[in-house]
Amino acid sequence: MNNRPLILVTNDDGIEARGFRELISIAREYGDVVAISSEVAMSGMSHAITIKVPLRVTLLDDAPHMKMYLTNGTPVDGVKLAFHTLLGRRPDLLLSGINHGSNSSASILYSGTMAAAMEGAVNHVPSIGFSLLDFDPHADFSVAGDVAREVIRGVLENGLPEGICLNVNVPGIPAPELKGIRVCNQANGYWKEEFEERTDPNGRTYYWLTGFFHNREPDGQGEGTDEWALKNNYASVVPINTDMTAYTQLEHLRSWELSMAKNEG
Amino acid sequence: MNNRPLILVTNDDGIEARGFRELISIAREYGDVVAISSEVAMSGMSHAITIKVPLRVTLLDDAPHMKMYLTNGTPVDGVKLAFHTLLGRRPDLLLSGINHGSNSSASILYSGTMAAAMEGAVNHVPSIGFSLLDFDPHADFSVAGDVAREVIRGVLENGLPEGICLNVNVPGIPAPELKGIRVCNQANGYWKEEFEERTDPNGRTYYWLTGFFHNREPDGQGEGTDEWALKNNYASVVPINTDMTAYTQLEHLRSWELSMAKNEG
Repeated sequence: MNNRPLILVTNDDGIEARGFRELISIAREYGDVVAISSEVAMSGMSHAITIKVPLRVTLLDDAPHMKMYLTNGTPVDGVKLAFHTLLGRRPDLLLSGINHGSNSSASILYSGTMAAAMEGAVNHVPSIGFSLLDFDPHADFSVAGDVAREVIRGVLENGLPEGICLNVNVPGIPAPELKGIRVCNQANGYWKEEFEERTDPNGRTYYWLTGFFHNREPDGQGEGTDEWALKNNYASVVPINTDMTAYTQLEHLRSWELSMAKNEG
Repeated sequence: MNNRPLILVTNDDGIEARGFRELISIAREYGDVVAISSEVAMSGMSHAITIKVPLRVTLLDDAPHMKMYLTNGTPVDGVKLAFHTLLGRRPDLLLSGINHGSNSSASILYSGTMAAAMEGAVNHVPSIGFSLLDFDPHADFSVAGDVAREVIRGVLENGLPEGICLNVNVPGIPAPELKGIRVCNQANGYWKEEFEERTDPNGRTYYWLTGFFHNREPDGQGEGTDEWALKNNYASVVPINTDMTAYTQLEHLRSWELSMAKNEG
């Protein structure tokens, strides 16, 4: 037993991802680490959970102050398994990533990295998801690592309100170009799909999901949003609410006077 | 060409699900219907999208004012395919469900039904997800159907703000017991997992994900929440925001003064 923080580290790019290894190494500076990753890359798995097949967990590495597990489940399955079968006690911090590629704006909806962080927040564990805007498997994670250390420091010092996690994105630029860290709101945008239609050798049509991000902010800018920050060489930090109620709409919806009167009459 | 509303109907329980067939039948009362479902049940798939395998679409049924498609993709893939390859124009309404089982409170995070509705909202299509609190494949959907008609009427008359969709849950009770429809906020709760550990014939451990919903509201009540409404025999309608920013936290986070000063010094 010791008093070092217990930190759960996970990701959605698989066990060999460089960003995951980088985040584990950073986490070890702050406490005892339990790391869990899916057997295969789980990008785009969002908050999916595994109901139809049994989950398996393998202990891959059992070093001093660091255990690493592998699971056949999704990132969210991994978090649930860690909380309930692997950790022994509630962790002090959950770190997810560092994702290879952006999870800013609407991309959060599809992100396994951020779903893992949200699963932590729902369980009232201070949780942070990190992403680097660089898909290169050999990307340089040193800037993202420095940003991560600063945000981890902030969370360890201040805590996070229950049900809230942080979505941290870092531009893929060299350290001297990074202007700082901005607290932002999620930019209004969406992924505009362009399905690429092909024909297989049997003459049947199939589609590859492709697309590009479309920013709906005024002039494609939206000062104060995560997209704006990243384009202007800031790292972005967005507080994410796992209570998804649109509170500003409650009163308006009540004015609709929905009722089953026609059945009651 | 005609002026009838174009309605996309989808679900996450698969093409044969009774709740899906019921929702298609209701949608046909209001407009021309294009329905799409996954080949297999996709409960718990959340907002997952398919990146690694090509997507396929089969036209199953081509009746007057109603087309039905089958896809190997997830519910969100199906919505994207419909928007970009099947519909020809932006639909006037997206209906998802009627799900077999609740999607109230934190269950929304894992729900393929609600992810499909959120995908509609992100694309600025008025979207509603419906769920009946009854897992019986042969459940009686007549009460849920009447609630759906009333909410659809409200949305067709009033529209929905961009980026907002509705999460509608209906208790599994006979019509005379339903007290009405309540506009609610998402109850504060989470799924407390209890992994059931077993040993396979080769002596290896595996786990089944099980669990129960834990309501964190005061006294497990929380008047005004969806859980409270459902327990008190009301159908619940929660407006859901696809902008997940916790706006109330921005100022507090800025007071942390996150900076890369140590790198800049």
